[in-house]
Amino acid sequence: MTEFELIDRFFKAKAARLAQQRRDTGSTSPVRLGIGDDCALLQPDSGQQIAISTDMLVENRHFLPDVAPDALGHKALAVNLSDLAAMGAEPLGFTLALALPPERAADETWLDAFGDGLLKLATEHACPLVGGDTTAGPLNLCITVFGQVHPGQALRRDGARPGDEIWVSGTLGDARLALGVLRAEWSLPPGAFAAARARLERPAPRLALGLALRGIATSCLDVSDGLIGDLGHILDASGVGATLREVLLPQPAALAELPATEASLWGTAARRALLLAGGDDYELAFTAPPERHAAVLTAGAHTGVAVACIGRITAGSGLRVLDAAGDPVDIHALHSFDHFAN
Amino acid sequence: MTEFELIDRFFKAKAARLAQQRRDTGSTSPVRLGIGDDCALLQPDSGQQIAISTDMLVENRHFLPDVAPDALGHKALAVNLSDLAAMGAEPLGFTLALALPPERAADETWLDAFGDGLLKLATEHACPLVGGDTTAGPLNLCITVFGQVHPGQALRRDGARPGDEIWVSGTLGDARLALGVLRAEWSLPPGAFAAARARLERPAPRLALGLALRGIATSCLDVSDGLIGDLGHILDASGVGATLREVLLPQPAALAELPATEASLWGTAARRALLLAGGDDYELAFTAPPERHAAVLTAGAHTGVAVACIGRITAGSGLRVLDAAGDPVDIHALHSFDHFAN
Repeated sequence: MTEFELIDRFFKAKAARLAQQRRDTGSTSPVRLGIGDDCALLQPDSGQQIAISTDMLVENRHFLPDVAPDALGHKALAVNLSDLAAMGAEPLGFTLALALPPERAADETWLDAFGDGLLKLATEHACPLVGGDTTAGPLNLCITVFGQVHPGQALRRDGARPGDEIWVSGTLGDARLALGVLRAEWSLPPGAFAAARARLERPAPRLALGLALRGIATSCLDVSDGLIGDLGHILDASGVGATLREVLLPQPAALAELPATEASLWGTAARRALLLAGGDDYELAFTAPPERHAAVLTAGAHTGVAVACIGRITAGSGLRVLDAAGDPVDIHALHSFDHFAN
Repeated sequence: MTEFELIDRFFKAKAARLAQQRRDTGSTSPVRLGIGDDCALLQPDSGQQIAISTDMLVENRHFLPDVAPDALGHKALAVNLSDLAAMGAEPLGFTLALALPPERAADETWLDAFGDGLLKLATEHACPLVGGDTTAGPLNLCITVFGQVHPGQALRRDGARPGDEIWVSGTLGDARLALGVLRAEWSLPPGAFAAARARLERPAPRLALGLALRGIATSCLDVSDGLIGDLGHILDASGVGATLREVLLPQPAALAELPATEASLWGTAARRALLLAGGDDYELAFTAPPERHAAVLTAGAHTGVAVACIGRITAGSGLRVLDAAGDPVDIHALHSFDHFAN
């Protein structure tokens, strides 16, 4: 199979079928020219800004070699869509660059399932594959995603103000909980593991919530490297500090459902690390003025995503986390995921 | 050095300096938000289409491990800018995703030179670095580039019509000529090698020519995989055939300057393979109606790029190459570069 046959077979034809399904439902597409020319051509709505994000996924660092290929396809796009969500942008399309070792390039079952997982999520969020590149090499996936947002409406990191409430969507720590089982650091009952693993392998990008938060949130990002590390980016960019209340952090459902014997594993320190520093959750962390509290709750309710108010932005700098008794938690022992530090 | 420090030090700070230089010259930038948020934000001119291309470069396949890092930085962006050129699009910006093995991530001299080569070309073509991703992994560079083009003006592959003249910019085979020396397939005198090597390692994207060909060319692409293979894409997309005249193909200056002893190495068959199937030249191949012949020559002259008329589009299908005597050349023995076939 040559490079061109591979693209045609597993991506171009599949993407064209999905695009046709979309046209059949009466939706219009911004794609004026898709896979197969020197460039793809997209037509954004007039006057819109283009939001762009790129992520590179490497085997053994971002995913394990035995990950299900459809889950890998899903996640590779989901982490990029999550960046559009965090910006409050509406998806326009994405490109895929793929380096495949010979055994993967020859594995049609793997390629087919990878393409399915990727393009199913793309269709769900009306984000078509518009172009790409395929080469031989150590397995590497690079997706670049494009969205549009009205000038001035993007949810940036630098708009948090003292007094703003701090919110997070969904629950925190689920992905890290599942990763620990896969790494044999701990075990979970099958049902709890399955729930956490779905969050690790098939994160749901919070696009609808991001769109609903435009005009409400003062800052926003997605939690990919752990809450403390990521929230730190908002604080740095906005020139503010923050105080979080530990008891308000939304916990993985899997933890709440543990039998008492397993639950004892998850004492304060372990639970704290999971919630404050567990990465890969792809939930939105954002700030909004207290007078928009009800509007945030409504945005969550309308988009079917739980939202929890977990603290406040303060003047000055630095992040404090208070425990149930109101005492400061030592967060220096926790550290956020860094691709070169570990 | 953490991921964030690496980005800050070698890319963000450098890109910011270059952007400031540009503002100092009074140029406006489409970048509304650069490196450091979930997404970059670009503001294209109202109503424009967005042209997008992505390329992934892998060590030992697209470049040799000992390539000069500034040349690598130049080429990684140049091959993407060449796709914008082939579309007749004006650059808006690019993203860089970079997987680095530990020894590269720790090599500040290498990173600094790579960043210099990359961002110098970016500045030259007013194409700012707007975002990216950095991770540990086998060396891999993925650049995605964005441009804008007025609806209907993009130079696509599917517009060639019978009777159109076929043109190519610059010269063909230079990059393959240099690669052969690096691979010890043949040798060249130092001056000839230096000239060919510059074409291999620092190709000049033909952006000005691509812009000048809007409204003149009926189809266009860049020659990255060899003339025959790439021209085949225009023929397939346009549903036409073509006849090329071998004597009209523009030859590398290095070949013309060879002493008689080396020149004899480059008999008909070798020279033919070089010109018709040598890859990596990043020249534009395009078609235009014969009544626009003078307009094409003017576009070349105004942008300082030689253009050569090398044949005609024909009805039907298939590509024929005629030798000096008017006899068909056997082109099946030549084959275009394919990333999985060799």
